[in-house]
Amino acid sequence: MTSLPETIDTLLINCRAGTMAKEALSPIEKAAIAVAKGKIAWIGRQKDLPEKILDRSLKTIDCQNRWILPGFVDCHTHLVFGGSRSNEFEMRLNGATYEEISNQGGGIISTVTATRKASREALYNAAEKRVTHFLHHGITCLEIKSGYGLDLETELKMLDVIARLNNNSPVHIEATFLGAHSLPPEFKDDADRYIDHIIHDMLPAVKQQGIATAVDVFCEKIAFSLEQTQKVFIAARKLGLNIKLHAEQLSDTSAAAMAAQLGALSCDHLEYLSVPSAQKMAENQTVAVLLPGAFYYLKETQKPHVKLFRDLNIPMAVATDLNPGSSPVHSMTLVLNMACLLFDMTCQEALLGATINGARALGLDNEKGSLETGKHADLVIWDIDRPGDLCYLAGWSPVDLVMTHGNIVLDHLTH
Amino acid sequence: MTSLPETIDTLLINCRAGTMAKEALSPIEKAAIAVAKGKIAWIGRQKDLPEKILDRSLKTIDCQNRWILPGFVDCHTHLVFGGSRSNEFEMRLNGATYEEISNQGGGIISTVTATRKASREALYNAAEKRVTHFLHHGITCLEIKSGYGLDLETELKMLDVIARLNNNSPVHIEATFLGAHSLPPEFKDDADRYIDHIIHDMLPAVKQQGIATAVDVFCEKIAFSLEQTQKVFIAARKLGLNIKLHAEQLSDTSAAAMAAQLGALSCDHLEYLSVPSAQKMAENQTVAVLLPGAFYYLKETQKPHVKLFRDLNIPMAVATDLNPGSSPVHSMTLVLNMACLLFDMTCQEALLGATINGARALGLDNEKGSLETGKHADLVIWDIDRPGDLCYLAGWSPVDLVMTHGNIVLDHLTH
Repeated sequence: MTSLPETIDTLLINCRAGTMAKEALSPIEKAAIAVAKGKIAWIGRQKDLPEKILDRSLKTIDCQNRWILPGFVDCHTHLVFGGSRSNEFEMRLNGATYEEISNQGGGIISTVTATRKASREALYNAAEKRVTHFLHHGITCLEIKSGYGLDLETELKMLDVIARLNNNSPVHIEATFLGAHSLPPEFKDDADRYIDHIIHDMLPAVKQQGIATAVDVFCEKIAFSLEQTQKVFIAARKLGLNIKLHAEQLSDTSAAAMAAQLGALSCDHLEYLSVPSAQKMAENQTVAVLLPGAFYYLKETQKPHVKLFRDLNIPMAVATDLNPGSSPVHSMTLVLNMACLLFDMTCQEALLGATINGARALGLDNEKGSLETGKHADLVIWDIDRPGDLCYLAGWSPVDLVMTHGNIVLDHLTH
Repeated sequence: MTSLPETIDTLLINCRAGTMAKEALSPIEKAAIAVAKGKIAWIGRQKDLPEKILDRSLKTIDCQNRWILPGFVDCHTHLVFGGSRSNEFEMRLNGATYEEISNQGGGIISTVTATRKASREALYNAAEKRVTHFLHHGITCLEIKSGYGLDLETELKMLDVIARLNNNSPVHIEATFLGAHSLPPEFKDDADRYIDHIIHDMLPAVKQQGIATAVDVFCEKIAFSLEQTQKVFIAARKLGLNIKLHAEQLSDTSAAAMAAQLGALSCDHLEYLSVPSAQKMAENQTVAVLLPGAFYYLKETQKPHVKLFRDLNIPMAVATDLNPGSSPVHSMTLVLNMACLLFDMTCQEALLGATINGARALGLDNEKGSLETGKHADLVIWDIDRPGDLCYLAGWSPVDLVMTHGNIVLDHLTH
């Protein structure tokens, strides 16, 4: 009791809390949540609410028996980019071949070109619109990767835009440096030289800029090799940066095992992950980030081995992978739905994946991702009958209220 | 010029119009649209705008070079129903067999039971929330089927709820009687007797109630036979009602050919349609309504033969098929995306399918579905760069303004 703050900023009463504590939905019926200084000061059954909290509350919200869940944590996005690939999407449907699209400047290189050309302002404005859309649909924390610059100047520009988004938006944003996303045209046929450039020039500059908390690499035949990936990771670790990996999306490179052993926060995609690599991830409790939007958009058929992750007790996160080429998926509830229907995850697994395990994939699980005393008051009140509705109602994110860090940033409930 | 109304209620200037006229996007850049008495009084290039219109306009909206398209027409939904099947969705993901779900009262019969039990008020309130969500995401006209009563009282109750929704909502709603949706338990093993009941008791009562404009039947091994379907259709035609068909979703029954020859407005689903049946549809210009949401939810693999429809010049519509069991899909833009990615439709085909061809499937193409002089002023201003974005941006319906029958019912643009 003595640890209760002097003032409770907001008291939420008459709610049903899907706490996501203890690796389950862990619901509390007839719950109350007290918010102070941006954090959850108390959560429990309303009938157990200490009288002191009632006395100290500045504002009380009657949640009308609605469900409250932690805000979604979208742990893998490429949300900052120049240009659009909508035209390319349409060309493909109209029958253009990959070669024809490529000849017209399509593919990732078109995004790199547009991102290099774009002003900070243009990049910021386009991204800010997406962040606001995400927030209004229940995402309170997200990760954004660089990786469409592939040169020092543009990579730093992207990270600067991400920093500004984080400063100006109620959404908490983690920045990841993904210089090793694709081989830039300037280094054609000399990936090793580009990797050296990343390690000796880009990584130190990124570290000095101070916004990126993690380093990511795309390890794949069409991108970088296991050895190149490992070199980048070792350099990143020396600088005290976390590591993450795009791995085993199109083939098995065993990079996930290597990354797990180097203490990676997460390995992402994983459609072609081998059993031994999964075992290494299990040993190191590396989060498996599953990205059904990219699977869907690329019309893939090889699914990630969810049963294996389940059996080995590997934490599973889900994320939008929002990017203009392979996953223009702008909704976490749509990702939940796809995680269930395309990857055979249970609703509880999908919901844990979009909350506490998403936070774990960012190293933020001590602060975010569940409704527990001491954690950030990042939460969403939903107009649903049961948490499974968030997986079931494809194309509908019935948000009633969004709170980040204790501040109400969207309110359809009382207004 | 003499035919211009004395007063223009709203003049939309500085827009890009995706008119959907002449079976194509038929865009007009730098366009203006004049709205009077709920209809489009003038549409064309702004520089050609008659001065009289400017003089007579009560209100002018600067569309800031945004795209305007006709409001979406969702021509196939089961939007009114009691209960929820979210729990059943979750049970299945948790590994329950169909038998276990059925033993717990799952499947369509659970919706029938809940719909029979539900009060008019409860049915109305649940449906009204869905209609409002649809409207806010760009749907200005939709069809709702009965078919969860399967007894006279409940079927009329559903049609009455649909009538009230139509009266109270800015969305235009067409009601379809679907008594032959599934065999009710009371008629177990005696489908012919239920068909007689439909023809002799239900159809006349439905006709007398006066809200339903069409009659639909689910022709399938698990529902009603070709002969039974035909009997219902002939009776419906005698009463002057339009006919529509759930056909060839799970197998080929040749019902689409029969329905086409009887002048059906549309045949819907059509995954297993035969070439001869398609030819009958082509001859009669029967609309093929494609429902990718159900295909996705049921994890089907047999796709409708879009290339055949294209080659035979059969009009293709797309719709949500919103229903609690096989298609809880709550977004037309998500349907557009699935139509492209799952059914290989082009963006233009999908957009025509959600506008003019949706209207055609309801017999409303003279009034709705395209931006042309004399048609209803049902339109949406979108915050997009190009119409293809509506197919590309999965999980995002960036609506700026919705107008139905000339009234602005949602406005993020000027407010």
